[in-house]
Amino acid sequence: MSNPLILDGLRVAKEIHQKTQERAQKLRKQGIVPCLATVLVGDNPSSHTYVRMKAKACEKYGLTSVRIHLPEETTTEELVAKIEELNRDPRVHGILLQHPVPSHIDERKAFETIDLEKDVDGVTSHGYGEVSMGFGQYPSCTPAGIMAILDYYKIPIEGKHAVVIGRSPILGKPVSQLLLNRNATVTVCHSRTVNLPHHVSQADIVVAAVGKPRFVQGDWIKPGAVIIDAGYNKGNIGDVDFEACLPKAGAITPVPGGPGPVTIAFLLKHTVDAAERTLNAKQHVKQDLA
Amino acid sequence: MSNPLILDGLRVAKEIHQKTQERAQKLRKQGIVPCLATVLVGDNPSSHTYVRMKAKACEKYGLTSVRIHLPEETTTEELVAKIEELNRDPRVHGILLQHPVPSHIDERKAFETIDLEKDVDGVTSHGYGEVSMGFGQYPSCTPAGIMAILDYYKIPIEGKHAVVIGRSPILGKPVSQLLLNRNATVTVCHSRTVNLPHHVSQADIVVAAVGKPRFVQGDWIKPGAVIIDAGYNKGNIGDVDFEACLPKAGAITPVPGGPGPVTIAFLLKHTVDAAERTLNAKQHVKQDLA
Repeated sequence: MSNPLILDGLRVAKEIHQKTQERAQKLRKQGIVPCLATVLVGDNPSSHTYVRMKAKACEKYGLTSVRIHLPEETTTEELVAKIEELNRDPRVHGILLQHPVPSHIDERKAFETIDLEKDVDGVTSHGYGEVSMGFGQYPSCTPAGIMAILDYYKIPIEGKHAVVIGRSPILGKPVSQLLLNRNATVTVCHSRTVNLPHHVSQADIVVAAVGKPRFVQGDWIKPGAVIIDAGYNKGNIGDVDFEACLPKAGAITPVPGGPGPVTIAFLLKHTVDAAERTLNAKQHVKQDLA
Repeated sequence: MSNPLILDGLRVAKEIHQKTQERAQKLRKQGIVPCLATVLVGDNPSSHTYVRMKAKACEKYGLTSVRIHLPEETTTEELVAKIEELNRDPRVHGILLQHPVPSHIDERKAFETIDLEKDVDGVTSHGYGEVSMGFGQYPSCTPAGIMAILDYYKIPIEGKHAVVIGRSPILGKPVSQLLLNRNATVTVCHSRTVNLPHHVSQADIVVAAVGKPRFVQGDWIKPGAVIIDAGYNKGNIGDVDFEACLPKAGAITPVPGGPGPVTIAFLLKHTVDAAERTLNAKQHVKQDLA
């Protein structure tokens, strides 16, 4: 059997970032600095790292970011009020609420507060619904990144059987809708699935989004299957047993270097999309007044 | 093998209607007449029949209805304007835009215009997103009806493999999300699915929502599977070859008398839900003023 293709997320991300950077520069010349507001609640060290990475990426590619750090004891109401403030702030084009928030907060309520026009991370139910119906502006960033990797490597999707392991609101569910809209036959598996290995063994495309280190086993994989590992567990370990799956796979993403970097690329791209939309809206007003 | 269970949609609908009627009477005593506005565009005879059936059901169970009939040549803008008028009308609690509208109209745009609070038919992307996330008020009525039939007959869903044939925004997609939220493993198949019979043969629960008469064949069915026929084609013919599937099925819905009547029952139930919510909102205002 031929060597499996290693799907390089960094390469895909680089291409997206390049276009984003050009667009950000153009916007700056027109007096608009694309701005992402990141909201972090509490002291989870991984969340700190993620938010820092996102802010640094903004800086690198010509965007700016506002970092809001709220204390662990923040209430749902306080978080909602802060998000509403960011919704109203015309300098802010995109809002990212770093998941997870402390358990006493109603995370869903906080997500739902984000204005659809600023939901560049694709976390609102409304955004999810629009994406599912095929016309959403901002799909969740990891699902968007997964589709971009498949497209970059020209992996056929139509008519293929995709098995998604996981059904979270920002990963398993939206990626299943994106795959379905691209004419894959899609099976969604999860913690209550009976005989998961059987389901995975039927897949032409496997998306692992379950949050358990090295969960997907080599002997589950149909020879030649495309494996996308969207997991990211402590110690740079994915949801897929990479070494065991590699010999069976037709193509596979590594961890790190799979959907992770492309996720950030889409976050920035969406923020620039949102900034461009405000520019277009302004020009409409000017024309109306002319 | 024991005789398959015939899942009687009329019986399920009757139980729902009875509760709806009681609640409608209670609302009337408080001065609120639950009101469904139906909007029909053009002269499709089936659509006329559906709208008439819905209006008659309203009358029978203590609701009222406003029937809007727009001519075939109505533009998208005119339809949107009419829906906006109904959104603003405090006497109207629910709005149903009869599908399909004439092909020159942007149906999605018209659906999206319906106020989320009045989207009792579950057609907006926002409503779909909320239902998918597990907290929506008004799931699409046929999917809600299918779940009610399964529940009425105490058919286990958790851990079962459900195969949905069809991915329309108001049937295949939302029923797949409802089944997923009830812990089924869910596969969505459609016109681009390769080897559909193989997928269907794996299913513990089959939902046929494809719009082709007698499409699902008896030899596709795993012995003992539960078959829900959500199709309704000319001449009272479902999407399932009932005679051929009957000997294989553990349980099966007939056509007519399957999800159809339960769909209408949910439309009325949701309209009363919406009317009750306006009452509650009014009482809140009163308390605020007290």
